[in-house]
Amino acid sequence: MTEFGFTLIAQDGAARRGRVTTAHGTVETPAFMPVGTAGTVKGMLPAAVAQTGAEILLGNTYHLMLRPGAERVERLGGLHKMMAWDRPILTDSGGFQVMSLTGLRKLTDEGVIFRSHIDGSEHRLTPERSIDIQRMLDSDITMALDECTPHPSSFEQTEKSLALSMRWAARSRNAFVRRPGYGLFGIVQGGIYLDLRSRSVADLTEIGFDGYAVGGLAVGEGQETMFTVLDHIVPELPADRPHYLMGVGTPADLVGAVARGIDMCDCVMPTRSGRTGQAFTARGKVNLRNARHQDDPRPLEEGCRCPACTQFSRAYLHHLQRSEEMLGPILLTWHNLIYYQDLMAGMRRAIETGQFADFTAAFHETQNKGDISPL
Amino acid sequence: MTEFGFTLIAQDGAARRGRVTTAHGTVETPAFMPVGTAGTVKGMLPAAVAQTGAEILLGNTYHLMLRPGAERVERLGGLHKMMAWDRPILTDSGGFQVMSLTGLRKLTDEGVIFRSHIDGSEHRLTPERSIDIQRMLDSDITMALDECTPHPSSFEQTEKSLALSMRWAARSRNAFVRRPGYGLFGIVQGGIYLDLRSRSVADLTEIGFDGYAVGGLAVGEGQETMFTVLDHIVPELPADRPHYLMGVGTPADLVGAVARGIDMCDCVMPTRSGRTGQAFTARGKVNLRNARHQDDPRPLEEGCRCPACTQFSRAYLHHLQRSEEMLGPILLTWHNLIYYQDLMAGMRRAIETGQFADFTAAFHETQNKGDISPL
Repeated sequence: MTEFGFTLIAQDGAARRGRVTTAHGTVETPAFMPVGTAGTVKGMLPAAVAQTGAEILLGNTYHLMLRPGAERVERLGGLHKMMAWDRPILTDSGGFQVMSLTGLRKLTDEGVIFRSHIDGSEHRLTPERSIDIQRMLDSDITMALDECTPHPSSFEQTEKSLALSMRWAARSRNAFVRRPGYGLFGIVQGGIYLDLRSRSVADLTEIGFDGYAVGGLAVGEGQETMFTVLDHIVPELPADRPHYLMGVGTPADLVGAVARGIDMCDCVMPTRSGRTGQAFTARGKVNLRNARHQDDPRPLEEGCRCPACTQFSRAYLHHLQRSEEMLGPILLTWHNLIYYQDLMAGMRRAIETGQFADFTAAFHETQNKGDISPL
Repeated sequence: MTEFGFTLIAQDGAARRGRVTTAHGTVETPAFMPVGTAGTVKGMLPAAVAQTGAEILLGNTYHLMLRPGAERVERLGGLHKMMAWDRPILTDSGGFQVMSLTGLRKLTDEGVIFRSHIDGSEHRLTPERSIDIQRMLDSDITMALDECTPHPSSFEQTEKSLALSMRWAARSRNAFVRRPGYGLFGIVQGGIYLDLRSRSVADLTEIGFDGYAVGGLAVGEGQETMFTVLDHIVPELPADRPHYLMGVGTPADLVGAVARGIDMCDCVMPTRSGRTGQAFTARGKVNLRNARHQDDPRPLEEGCRCPACTQFSRAYLHHLQRSEEMLGPILLTWHNLIYYQDLMAGMRRAIETGQFADFTAAFHETQNKGDISPL
């Protein structure tokens, strides 16, 4: 039986090259997890997602518990089987979406009562229920239920919210049924207050988790503040467990996070941007809706291995966006996922060879030139 | 240099097994052409369309002339190159969509003036302009401009409309620049009036075309009337040229059309139905939005080679439809295109082996059971 675990393979400064072992296979880290909200990475077949290089997906407990329903997913053989993805899956706890998407009815020490954004029906989420839902989904990595403290919040608000999250973390740990290859991650909260962040790490390590996530960032505090929090907190995290930065971010965010010892990231950015005509490239972000692409016969990105770049012109990608053709979002999602995965692969190689600083410098050199590429 | 042509390989009753040769390759007939309206089969990569078995696509002159524009497509190297489809393409003349989609401004003997459904801009379409647009698109098979007579129309209206279409057919022929491997098809009109249909065939064969299409059907006259028209008209078409039934239809329509000597068909039905949750199967049409699929672990169709059937359950396909996930339309479009292509392949084999009557009987046996498949 596979034991859930983390192996540190190489280190370059604070940047770590590792491997997470789960019931459904291994994940080379630093890893980026595409988001498959409702049991599908929007517009992509699972085989295509795997071809981008993704080794682990993120599923959203909130969406799946409402539709098709956790019990139904379990009857269908679990999330892997239902969505035909046989590699590892991490699920969030549902807490973040309950706070951000629903008509929240009541938050108590026990849990939250909320109304579905789909049909208004009333639902209950507690640490125990969240853990049980994630078990039914057959998630390789289960996340503890927490309250994602809104930004900005005062020290007092943040402290109170953190205390609740830490009580829920302990209850999540108690509710989690250990099975070989399955892991439970705790989530560090504390907002922008470094001593609260440290207190959170102390509480979580006291409880003991298979991995440690940093939550409550990329919620409006800015990249500099986010990096300040990571600089402070990541060194305090157990070095023998994976470090997961939740919901982050831009390519520059990822490079900065890995530089600070983050092993795993997830974000809707590559997929959501792809659906609105935004492409990530070595020369920065490109908006394919812009009229200056309409006669451009060149590929979106020379040398990229994705179907958008190997088969089509910028003019055609522009046409698809303007015509609101499904193939437009499909192709740009594909491109962006490959951009993100290749960025992670580049960082993994750089850490292995002790060239992470060079990699970072080269990355910043080429990025942020903006969407300038005269014909 | 490849000459455009049609080879009759086998015949079984009136059903014909043939091969159309074009500048971009050959098409085994009877053939079904998926519709790639705006330079893309909605939701499908060209390689996936080819894997369904499609050997020729239909492009819409009306949509492409408005966006991205015929001159732009020509500058980008033609429609094949722009959309990365290197097999044959047939384009319609634009006439049908001008009549059905636009604020038609003026119909004269010269042509039509209409307003774009996209931005309201005024455009002009004449036989000469339509042929020139299709040349710029680099269409292997160009369609003559005609007026698709509305249904119902009186004999007098139909006769007047037909006369216009026949004058336009002659002008289309004159405007068409012959190039090796490229063909021009005329379109038989005449509504439900069999003598007008015969007059149309006589007029067109007098002008002389590389293929003959039957237009103005499947516009509300019903399958029986459509078959009556085909029974009457197809025997009058030149036997050494391909016979193309435009915009048709259901699987039963196709089987009936092929039985009457039709070689080529196109229809939005498999793609459009796929986008609204409808699947064509050996047991009839299935609506995946129906709640009775929500817990059904079985594949949509046992033995089908498409990704929807080989990788996923009906429950999951239902979930995708209900969640309005892009993957739902993608998978059902894929399935339906394969259903249509495999139906055509089955008919081709049956004609070759002289078993078309058996094929037809078996087809009707399994179809029209409706959407009944108890768990």
